[in-house]
Amino acid sequence: MIPVDIDALKANHPEHWMRATAIRALALDAVAKANSGHTGMPIGMADVATVLWSKHMKFDAAAPEWADRDRFILSAGHGSMLLYALLYLVGDAEITIDEVRNFRQLGAKTAGHPENFLAKGIECTTGPLGQGISMSVGFAIAEESLRARWGKKVFDHHTYVIAGDGCLMEGVSQEAIALAGRQKLGHLVVFWDNNGITIDGKVSISDNTNQPERFAASGWHVQEIDGHDPEAIDAAIAAAKADDRPSMIACKTHIALGHAAQDTSKGHGALTDAQQAIDAKGVWGWTAPAFEIPAEIKSWWEEAGSRGASERKEWEDRVAALSEAKQKELARMLAGEAPKKLSSTVKALKKQISESQPKVATRKSSEMVLEVINPILPETIGGSADLTGSNNTLTKDLGTFDFDSRKGRYVYYGIREHGMAAAMNGMALHGGVRPYGGTFMCFTDFARPAMRLAALQHIPTVFVMTHDSIGLGEDGPTHQPVEHLAISRATPNTLVFRPADTVETAEAWEIAFTQSATPSVLALSRQNLPTVRTEHKTKNLSAQGAYVLAEAEGKRQAIMIATGSEVAIALAAREALQAEGIGTRVVSMPCMELFADQDEAYRKRVLPAGPVRVGIEAACRLGWDRWLTGERGRANKADFVGMDSFGASAPAEELYAHFGITAEAAVEKVKALL
Amino acid sequence: MIPVDIDALKANHPEHWMRATAIRALALDAVAKANSGHTGMPIGMADVATVLWSKHMKFDAAAPEWADRDRFILSAGHGSMLLYALLYLVGDAEITIDEVRNFRQLGAKTAGHPENFLAKGIECTTGPLGQGISMSVGFAIAEESLRARWGKKVFDHHTYVIAGDGCLMEGVSQEAIALAGRQKLGHLVVFWDNNGITIDGKVSISDNTNQPERFAASGWHVQEIDGHDPEAIDAAIAAAKADDRPSMIACKTHIALGHAAQDTSKGHGALTDAQQAIDAKGVWGWTAPAFEIPAEIKSWWEEAGSRGASERKEWEDRVAALSEAKQKELARMLAGEAPKKLSSTVKALKKQISESQPKVATRKSSEMVLEVINPILPETIGGSADLTGSNNTLTKDLGTFDFDSRKGRYVYYGIREHGMAAAMNGMALHGGVRPYGGTFMCFTDFARPAMRLAALQHIPTVFVMTHDSIGLGEDGPTHQPVEHLAISRATPNTLVFRPADTVETAEAWEIAFTQSATPSVLALSRQNLPTVRTEHKTKNLSAQGAYVLAEAEGKRQAIMIATGSEVAIALAAREALQAEGIGTRVVSMPCMELFADQDEAYRKRVLPAGPVRVGIEAACRLGWDRWLTGERGRANKADFVGMDSFGASAPAEELYAHFGITAEAAVEKVKALL
Repeated sequence: MIPVDIDALKANHPEHWMRATAIRALALDAVAKANSGHTGMPIGMADVATVLWSKHMKFDAAAPEWADRDRFILSAGHGSMLLYALLYLVGDAEITIDEVRNFRQLGAKTAGHPENFLAKGIECTTGPLGQGISMSVGFAIAEESLRARWGKKVFDHHTYVIAGDGCLMEGVSQEAIALAGRQKLGHLVVFWDNNGITIDGKVSISDNTNQPERFAASGWHVQEIDGHDPEAIDAAIAAAKADDRPSMIACKTHIALGHAAQDTSKGHGALTDAQQAIDAKGVWGWTAPAFEIPAEIKSWWEEAGSRGASERKEWEDRVAALSEAKQKELARMLAGEAPKKLSSTVKALKKQISESQPKVATRKSSEMVLEVINPILPETIGGSADLTGSNNTLTKDLGTFDFDSRKGRYVYYGIREHGMAAAMNGMALHGGVRPYGGTFMCFTDFARPAMRLAALQHIPTVFVMTHDSIGLGEDGPTHQPVEHLAISRATPNTLVFRPADTVETAEAWEIAFTQSATPSVLALSRQNLPTVRTEHKTKNLSAQGAYVLAEAEGKRQAIMIATGSEVAIALAAREALQAEGIGTRVVSMPCMELFADQDEAYRKRVLPAGPVRVGIEAACRLGWDRWLTGERGRANKADFVGMDSFGASAPAEELYAHFGITAEAAVEKVKALL
Repeated sequence: MIPVDIDALKANHPEHWMRATAIRALALDAVAKANSGHTGMPIGMADVATVLWSKHMKFDAAAPEWADRDRFILSAGHGSMLLYALLYLVGDAEITIDEVRNFRQLGAKTAGHPENFLAKGIECTTGPLGQGISMSVGFAIAEESLRARWGKKVFDHHTYVIAGDGCLMEGVSQEAIALAGRQKLGHLVVFWDNNGITIDGKVSISDNTNQPERFAASGWHVQEIDGHDPEAIDAAIAAAKADDRPSMIACKTHIALGHAAQDTSKGHGALTDAQQAIDAKGVWGWTAPAFEIPAEIKSWWEEAGSRGASERKEWEDRVAALSEAKQKELARMLAGEAPKKLSSTVKALKKQISESQPKVATRKSSEMVLEVINPILPETIGGSADLTGSNNTLTKDLGTFDFDSRKGRYVYYGIREHGMAAAMNGMALHGGVRPYGGTFMCFTDFARPAMRLAALQHIPTVFVMTHDSIGLGEDGPTHQPVEHLAISRATPNTLVFRPADTVETAEAWEIAFTQSATPSVLALSRQNLPTVRTEHKTKNLSAQGAYVLAEAEGKRQAIMIATGSEVAIALAAREALQAEGIGTRVVSMPCMELFADQDEAYRKRVLPAGPVRVGIEAACRLGWDRWLTGERGRANKADFVGMDSFGASAPAEELYAHFGITAEAAVEKVKALL
């Protein structure tokens, strides 16, 4: 154990010490009761958190959803008891002492890691390391954007982050740091809990990076302080707020301060030894029973929790002084509601497309849709991970979001798919903006941790994934998705759209932009596709997930089910089969999840028992059997045209022929099954 | 265009200029003929590559698999024509001028991005940015490890990397840089192609990181040079080799040097304009027809290609001077062949386990297996992304791999799942070592880009993924995999094992360690599991992917198919069903891919038509329908017990009950189907 003079800490700031130790005691008690969790981090960062929440954080514990509050992001999410202790102490209505006692139990709001959907006071779900700090960049972007558009009187707050060594070792943190530095996100303040300990031992066994130099290399304002000195903490936060760059405050701390496990990797985990707990409390000078906070300390904390109430009231007055139209618009954007015009705009576009029947790639279709949607949805913030011209994510009216043009709505994320996805999650969580961003679909892999967190956090981030198959062509198998539709479809609470043409693309965007709690993945083609929805329907057919695009003529002997670029192949196969008198229905299935949500009667109408079934998708079969052999299908009457290996490097049409994803192959499979 | 005095470049080093321009001309010709690709990067980095390959790289073009060659990794894989041009120029037997002419066409070895399995001269598959630089860390670790064990006379080579801005923006590069710096990988040299251009425009629109400072912060030796000055390049490489830290050489270059697209984002892509090509060649002073290299220049390059022949011969003599036993062992390890003892060791352990029938978590089973395998497989290099005690990846005999203990075989990777996975790929590609490494299965997401590349590259990396379900318990849904089995199963050329007990775990390891071209994922439980293989069988039953673990008594009315921790639940369900007179077979299915590979007759024996089928796996159903409703199954006679949402934070047993993954639920489903 590195010696620390705890008596001196107590003596120098006796009141602060006891207030901070309230956090320590709650963390120790809750983890011990749960017999699992992470005790040391809340103990080590209690001083920083106490100064931050009592002196700097702008919030009102009675109004955790106040739009102009400062955001607090516990990137080191395993230290969740730090957050729960703070919320309980300041008087949050949901995180009661019973919840703290119920830490990590079924149904509790105090889950093992913070989960934003369990309590309003929890800004985001963290635990997978590096995600919090990366989402914080999105929070800060949202704030800058809204401040530029609405003025400082409506939006003017900070984003505070506590990150540990794990967060900084995760690669995504570099993407976040570099993006924040480039964008000069001056309202972002990151505290690095520099305790020198990870699970496997000292940080030094796996890392010797000079973190302050690393942040400085990306344009951050950097300070290094004793993380147990409240005056130093206070001064550092003040300096951070005064600087127009993002700030990193390196806080030298002792994990599990005062406990027998202090400064050890054991201190990272659950400290459950009863005698050691008694001893630690003795060292801290804490005499209250478990889960009890002396009234004086609790009321001081509650005062800190209501410190922002008057500021909030003033903010509400300022908002009430806005024009009625502006107030309505602000409320709509904050609620994440789509404007009424969205539906009519999409309908008008669909009608025009069904008439003009363009043959374009669906990535281009997506751009055509965004060109009409972005002007009526001022809350959208688009972007791309350095593939703007390929992802077709930029529309004419957006302008560039930059440090000198904060009203711009297009972010050049750089080659940072993961950082982009996490930042978009942060924006969606912040509220008031609606993020979408593009990359090649194959790089779903890079963005995965954040894409999963979008689903888990119940937020409507939109991932624009272009070049969605071997149709990508010559760039070859490193860039050709095969398993990525399955990956996103396997993820709970995720809508995966693979539209067949511009009409379905418009329908997909309409659905994506009306979600409030579910992310969407748009899988879009590189190659040109014919318009298959040539008959205008005002109804959003994609909202049913799958529908009959072309009915069988004569006796229905076969059903071909296809998505995206393969719908045209299915139609060609149908034509060939019909020519031979084989009645064939074509079902377009742009969204399996939405189809699965339909009632049995509808699903049965689309996929009745009887006819042979052939699925067509230039991707792996995994996930298709449900529709081929399940849902009234039969194993000996079903087949699939798709990929069972990685792709190859060649022109797209040659690859389709080489891998046998053709109308001829589909026809043969149908005939073999009849 | 930033003005460059190309005449001065030519005049100062006229011979060098023409040799380097041979690369430029080939890149320009090949991309133009393919009408796709990336012209500018090979043009910009031709000078660096020329100096490196002709003056420093230890290689013999006639022996591309020489074990002690220097490795060249084109992390900026889109610049593949740089590598193909070099290989052709030095006389590689596979990359002929016809292959260069056939760039990016079906069946060519000259794919859009370098693919290691197409030609021996290609060390690894790159293109997904950041992967090459991250794999290079593994190459360098392998070399250090082998040098320590075999001596400098057998292994003493360098790993050279060309990385672009995209590589350095990708987060994984930070994991690689920090790991290499910490490990003082002095034989690793990274050239940063500092051309200031990405696809979306100037690097400065998305990044202003001071890369030299960033590398220096992680303990790298850093130099900054003019990347078109052959003397500066030569001196920098010499200095890099002399330094005992990993080296980064920042090379200021001009993308598409001398072309109309120089220094623009257009120069990044395919330059196909015929007149501009003529003009560029004019600027370069290049008069040879397309795809032709003047004899003098070609023979100079071929001389560079055979420069290492004598060194290789001396190396072969030194190896031949080793004892016969050592030569055999070296050959075995380089060939990636498992020792004969592996099979008997696994059999002995299985026998002992079937007798003692321990109830342990399969992560612990995995440790028990490794404890007996590691001593007989000296080529293994284990590790964990900071979860050693949880992943159970460390065995007693390994020792720590570190800068002062290179013979150690355990790497503390830090909280870097992605960097670990990529480094392991690099080790596997290097050869002579067999890497495995652990993290929580949920963090498959972080490692995904490298896990996919393991499969695509045909290498046997082993991913030890513990805490493979809601059985993880209190850490909650951020740490509980639901879709991750499906993710890995959807990936081509990947074996996904979910062993039910220690016997199956031993079988899985035996299969994983005998693979030569396929990565394995071991999904292991956190929670204790009973031994289900209580009857010893010398045969590796897991190698068939699935097998009958318990036969129905009486008329076979039901088949329960389960994996991993749910096999014991299936057995309990069977017992309850048998007690009611319902004959029930239990099929353990530790590896779906291997089962799919069995012949129809075997699959039919295991999964005959007729009985109802219920699958049990604490994960999403996606991927299961193939075995439930396909394979002679029927949609109305099949059901699944598993997850259809994210998990929750609570003790494991409560979660199993809460989500209905119980023997009772399985029994009910069977009865409902009968």
